[in-house]
Amino acid sequence: MTGSWLDDVRWTAEGLVPVIAQLADTGRVVMFAWMNRESLQLTAEKGYAVYWSRSRQRLWRKGEESGHQQKIIDIQLDCDEDVILLKIEQIGGIACHTGRQSCFYRSLLDGQWQSTEPVLKDPKTIYK
Amino acid sequence: MTGSWLDDVRWTAEGLVPVIAQLADTGRVVMFAWMNRESLQLTAEKGYAVYWSRSRQRLWRKGEESGHQQKIIDIQLDCDEDVILLKIEQIGGIACHTGRQSCFYRSLLDGQWQSTEPVLKDPKTIYK
Repeated sequence: MTGSWLDDVRWTAEGLVPVIAQLADTGRVVMFAWMNRESLQLTAEKGYAVYWSRSRQRLWRKGEESGHQQKIIDIQLDCDEDVILLKIEQIGGIACHTGRQSCFYRSLLDGQWQSTEPVLKDPKTIYK
Repeated sequence: MTGSWLDDVRWTAEGLVPVIAQLADTGRVVMFAWMNRESLQLTAEKGYAVYWSRSRQRLWRKGEESGHQQKIIDIQLDCDEDVILLKIEQIGGIACHTGRQSCFYRSLLDGQWQSTEPVLKDPKTIYK
Protein backbone atom coordinates (compact mmCIF):
# COMPACT_ATOMS: atom_id res chain seq x y z
CA MET A 1 0.00 0.00 0.00
CA THR A 2 3.06 2.28 0.00
CA GLY A 3 2.28 5.46 -1.82
CA SER A 4 -1.46 5.01 -1.98
CA TRP A 5 -1.97 8.47 -0.47
CA LEU A 6 0.04 9.78 -3.40
CA ASP A 7 -2.44 8.14 -5.75
CA ASP A 8 -5.23 10.15 -4.12
CA VAL A 9 -3.71 13.38 -5.46
CA ARG A 10 -5.12 14.54 -8.79
CA TRP A 11 -1.94 15.49 -10.63
CA THR A 12 -2.00 17.86 -13.61
CA ALA A 13 -1.27 16.57 -17.10
CA GLU A 14 2.37 17.49 -16.39
CA GLY A 15 2.31 15.37 -13.22
CA LEU A 16 2.33 18.36 -10.87
CA VAL A 17 0.26 19.72 -8.00
CA PRO A 18 0.17 23.35 -6.76
CA VAL A 19 1.43 23.83 -3.21
CA ILE A 20 0.80 26.64 -0.73
CA ALA A 21 3.27 27.04 2.17
CA GLN A 22 1.98 28.70 5.31
CA LEU A 23 3.71 29.38 8.63
CA ALA A 24 2.28 26.99 11.22
CA ASP A 25 2.46 29.52 14.05
CA THR A 26 1.14 32.77 12.56
CA GLY A 27 -0.76 31.51 9.50
CA ARG A 28 1.23 33.79 7.20
CA VAL A 29 1.28 32.47 3.63
CA VAL A 30 4.92 32.67 2.56
CA MET A 31 5.19 30.84 -0.75
CA PHE A 32 3.48 29.13 -3.65
CA ALA A 33 5.22 26.45 -5.72
CA TRP A 34 4.71 23.10 -7.41
CA MET A 35 5.49 19.49 -6.56
CA ASN A 36 5.65 16.31 -8.56
CA ARG A 37 5.03 12.90 -7.07
CA GLU A 38 8.65 12.34 -6.09
CA SER A 39 8.98 15.70 -4.38
CA LEU A 40 5.78 15.23 -2.38
CA GLN A 41 6.91 11.78 -1.29
CA LEU A 42 10.32 13.15 -0.27
CA THR A 43 8.66 16.02 1.59
CA ALA A 44 6.61 13.57 3.65
CA GLU A 45 9.54 11.21 4.22
CA LYS A 46 12.21 13.77 5.10
CA GLY A 47 9.97 16.24 6.92
CA TYR A 48 11.32 19.15 4.90
CA ALA A 49 9.77 20.75 1.82
CA VAL A 50 11.03 19.53 -1.56
CA TYR A 51 9.47 21.22 -4.59
CA TRP A 52 9.66 20.68 -8.34
CA SER A 53 11.28 23.60 -10.10
CA ARG A 54 9.44 24.12 -13.37
CA SER A 55 12.05 26.59 -14.66
CA ARG A 56 14.96 24.29 -13.90
CA GLN A 57 13.03 21.04 -14.43
CA ARG A 58 14.52 19.37 -11.40
CA LEU A 59 13.85 18.68 -7.72
CA TRP A 60 14.31 21.77 -5.61
CA ARG A 61 15.16 21.06 -2.00
CA LYS A 62 13.98 24.34 -0.50
CA GLY A 63 16.92 25.95 1.30
CA GLU A 64 19.54 23.91 -0.57
CA GLU A 65 21.47 27.12 -1.31
CA SER A 66 20.07 29.59 1.20
CA GLY A 67 19.79 27.29 4.19
CA HIS A 68 16.19 28.48 4.49
CA GLN A 69 14.60 25.06 4.76
CA GLN A 70 10.95 24.52 5.54
CA LYS A 71 10.25 22.03 8.31
CA ILE A 72 6.94 20.25 7.78
CA ILE A 73 4.36 20.48 10.55
CA ASP A 74 1.32 19.34 8.56
CA ILE A 75 0.45 18.35 4.97
CA GLN A 76 -3.13 19.05 3.91
CA LEU A 77 -5.15 18.23 0.80
CA ASP A 78 -8.12 20.18 -0.52
CA CYS A 79 -11.64 19.00 -1.30
CA ASP A 80 -10.87 18.49 -5.01
CA GLU A 81 -7.65 16.64 -4.19
CA ASP A 82 -5.64 18.85 -6.52
CA VAL A 83 -4.01 21.38 -4.16
CA ILE A 84 -1.61 20.82 -1.24
CA LEU A 85 -1.31 23.13 1.78
CA LEU A 86 1.84 22.84 3.91
CA LYS A 87 2.02 24.07 7.48
CA ILE A 88 5.68 24.79 8.02
CA GLU A 89 8.30 26.21 10.30
CA GLN A 90 10.49 28.52 8.19
CA ILE A 91 14.16 28.09 9.11
CA GLY A 92 15.90 31.47 9.14
CA GLY A 93 12.54 33.27 9.00
CA ILE A 94 12.93 34.04 5.29
CA ALA A 95 11.00 32.22 2.55
CA CYS A 96 11.42 34.65 -0.35
CA HIS A 97 14.45 34.91 -2.62
CA THR A 98 14.21 38.71 -2.23
CA GLY A 99 15.19 38.32 1.43
CA ARG A 100 11.70 38.89 2.82
CA GLN A 101 9.71 36.66 5.15
CA SER A 102 7.05 36.04 2.52
CA CYS A 103 6.87 36.13 -1.27
CA PHE A 104 3.59 38.04 -0.80
CA TYR A 105 4.92 41.44 0.15
CA ARG A 106 2.98 43.68 -2.24
CA SER A 107 -0.59 44.88 -1.84
CA LEU A 108 -2.88 46.57 -4.32
CA LEU A 109 -3.14 50.12 -2.96
CA ASP A 110 -4.48 53.08 -4.94
CA GLY A 111 -4.39 51.05 -8.14
CA GLN A 112 -0.75 50.02 -7.76
CA TRP A 113 1.18 47.10 -6.32
CA GLN A 114 3.02 48.56 -3.36
CA SER A 115 5.58 46.84 -1.16
CA THR A 116 4.47 46.75 2.45
CA GLU A 117 7.31 44.85 4.01
CA PRO A 118 11.07 45.23 4.43
CA VAL A 119 13.91 43.13 3.10
CA LEU A 120 15.27 41.26 6.13
CA LYS A 121 18.50 40.12 4.51
CA ASP A 122 20.32 41.18 1.34
CA PRO A 123 19.87 38.37 -1.22
CA LYS A 124 23.56 38.76 -2.13
CA THR A 125 24.44 37.46 1.32
CA ILE A 126 21.87 34.64 1.09
CA TYR A 127 22.97 33.17 -2.24
CA LYS A 128 26.74 32.98 -2.53
CA MET B 1 -3.37 54.21 -16.88
CA THR B 2 -6.49 52.19 -16.01
CA GLY B 3 -5.63 48.53 -15.67
CA SER B 4 -1.87 48.97 -15.58
CA TRP B 5 -1.70 46.98 -12.34
CA LEU B 6 -3.37 44.16 -14.26
CA ASP B 7 -0.55 44.29 -16.79
CA ASP B 8 1.94 43.65 -13.98
CA VAL B 9 0.48 40.18 -13.45
CA ARG B 10 2.24 37.42 -15.36
CA TRP B 11 -0.72 35.47 -16.72
CA THR B 12 -0.38 31.84 -17.81
CA ALA B 13 -0.61 30.89 -21.48
CA GLU B 14 -4.34 30.40 -20.85
CA GLY B 15 -4.60 33.91 -19.44
CA LEU B 16 -5.03 32.79 -15.83
CA VAL B 17 -3.38 33.36 -12.47
CA PRO B 18 -3.58 31.08 -9.40
CA VAL B 19 -5.31 32.62 -6.40
CA ILE B 20 -5.12 31.71 -2.70
CA ALA B 21 -7.93 32.91 -0.42
CA GLN B 22 -7.12 33.37 3.25
CA LEU B 23 -9.28 34.60 6.12
CA ALA B 24 -8.10 38.08 7.08
CA ASP B 25 -8.72 37.58 10.79
CA THR B 26 -7.35 34.11 11.57
CA GLY B 27 -5.05 33.49 8.60
CA ARG B 28 -6.82 30.26 7.75
CA VAL B 29 -6.37 29.32 4.08
CA VAL B 30 -9.84 28.41 2.86
CA MET B 31 -9.63 28.06 -0.92
CA PHE B 32 -7.49 27.91 -4.03
CA ALA B 33 -8.85 28.89 -7.44
CA TRP B 34 -8.00 30.74 -10.65
CA MET B 35 -8.75 34.15 -12.08
CA ASN B 36 -8.53 35.64 -15.52
CA ARG B 37 -7.98 39.33 -16.15
CA GLU B 38 -11.66 40.20 -16.12
CA SER B 39 -12.32 38.38 -12.86
CA LEU B 40 -9.38 40.01 -11.09
CA GLN B 41 -10.51 43.43 -12.28
CA LEU B 42 -14.08 42.74 -11.12
CA THR B 43 -12.78 41.47 -7.77
CA ALA B 44 -10.91 44.74 -7.20
CA GLU B 45 -13.80 46.90 -8.44
CA LYS B 46 -16.65 45.16 -6.62
CA GLY B 47 -14.77 44.25 -3.46
CA TYR B 48 -15.97 40.65 -3.65
CA ALA B 49 -14.10 37.67 -5.07
CA VAL B 50 -14.87 36.72 -8.67
CA TYR B 51 -13.02 33.69 -10.00
CA TRP B 52 -12.70 32.00 -13.37
CA SER B 53 -14.20 28.55 -13.38
CA ARG B 54 -11.97 26.36 -15.53
CA SER B 55 -14.48 23.49 -15.53
CA ARG B 56 -17.40 25.70 -16.57
CA GLN B 57 -15.29 28.15 -18.59
CA ARG B 58 -17.08 31.17 -17.23
CA LEU B 59 -16.86 33.84 -14.54
CA TRP B 60 -17.67 32.46 -11.13
CA ARG B 61 -18.96 35.03 -8.68
CA LYS B 62 -18.11 33.21 -5.47
CA GLY B 63 -21.30 32.80 -3.47
CA GLU B 64 -23.60 33.32 -6.46
CA GLU B 65 -25.53 30.18 -5.53
CA SER B 66 -24.57 29.60 -1.89
CA GLY B 67 -24.57 33.21 -0.72
CA HIS B 68 -21.09 32.52 0.66
CA GLN B 69 -19.42 35.56 -0.84
CA GLN B 70 -15.87 36.58 -0.04
CA LYS B 71 -15.44 40.22 0.91
CA ILE B 72 -12.02 41.52 -0.11
CA ILE B 73 -9.82 43.00 2.60
CA ASP B 74 -6.51 42.94 0.71
CA ILE B 75 -5.16 41.77 -2.67
CA GLN B 76 -1.51 40.72 -2.69
CA LEU B 77 0.92 39.74 -5.45
CA ASP B 78 3.96 37.51 -5.05
CA CYS B 79 7.59 38.19 -5.92
CA ASP B 80 7.31 36.51 -9.33
CA GLU B 81 4.09 38.34 -10.09
CA ASP B 82 2.31 35.14 -11.01
CA VAL B 83 0.30 34.30 -7.87
CA ILE B 84 -2.43 36.31 -6.09
CA LEU B 85 -3.21 36.11 -2.37
CA LEU B 86 -6.57 37.41 -1.18
CA LYS B 87 -7.25 38.39 2.41
CA ILE B 88 -10.98 37.95 2.79
CA GLU B 89 -13.92 37.96 5.11
CA GLN B 90 -15.92 34.80 4.42
CA ILE B 91 -19.64 35.53 4.46
CA GLY B 92 -21.50 32.68 6.18
CA GLY B 93 -18.25 31.25 7.49
CA ILE B 94 -18.18 28.51 4.84
CA ALA B 95 -15.85 28.55 1.83
CA CYS B 96 -16.00 24.90 0.77
CA HIS B 97 -18.72 23.30 -1.32
CA THR B 98 -18.68 20.39 1.15
CA GLY B 99 -20.10 22.72 3.80
CA ARG B 100 -16.84 23.16 5.71
CA GLN B 101 -15.08 26.38 6.62
CA SER B 102 -12.09 25.54 4.45
CA CYS B 103 -11.42 23.32 1.43
CA PHE B 104 -8.31 22.15 3.29
CA TYR B 105 -9.89 19.82 5.82
CA ARG B 106 -7.75 16.70 5.37
CA SER B 107 -4.31 16.07 6.82
CA LEU B 108 -1.80 13.36 6.02
CA LEU B 109 -1.84 11.20 9.17
CA ASP B 110 -0.36 7.70 9.39
CA GLY B 111 0.02 7.59 5.62
CA GLN B 112 -3.59 8.50 4.89
CA TRP B 113 -5.59 11.65 4.19
CA GLN B 114 -7.83 12.01 7.19
CA SER B 115 -10.58 14.56 7.69
CA THR B 116 -9.93 16.72 10.73
CA GLU B 117 -12.89 19.05 10.58
CA PRO B 118 -16.67 18.82 10.66
CA VAL B 119 -19.23 19.73 8.04
CA LEU B 120 -20.91 22.91 9.30
CA LYS B 121 -23.84 22.82 6.92
CA ASP B 122 -25.29 20.13 4.70
CA PRO B 123 -24.40 21.01 1.07
CA LYS B 124 -27.95 20.03 0.08
CA THR B 125 -29.22 22.99 2.06
CA ILE B 126 -26.55 25.32 0.61
CA TYR B 127 -27.15 24.63 -3.06
CA LYS B 128 -30.81 24.45 -3.86
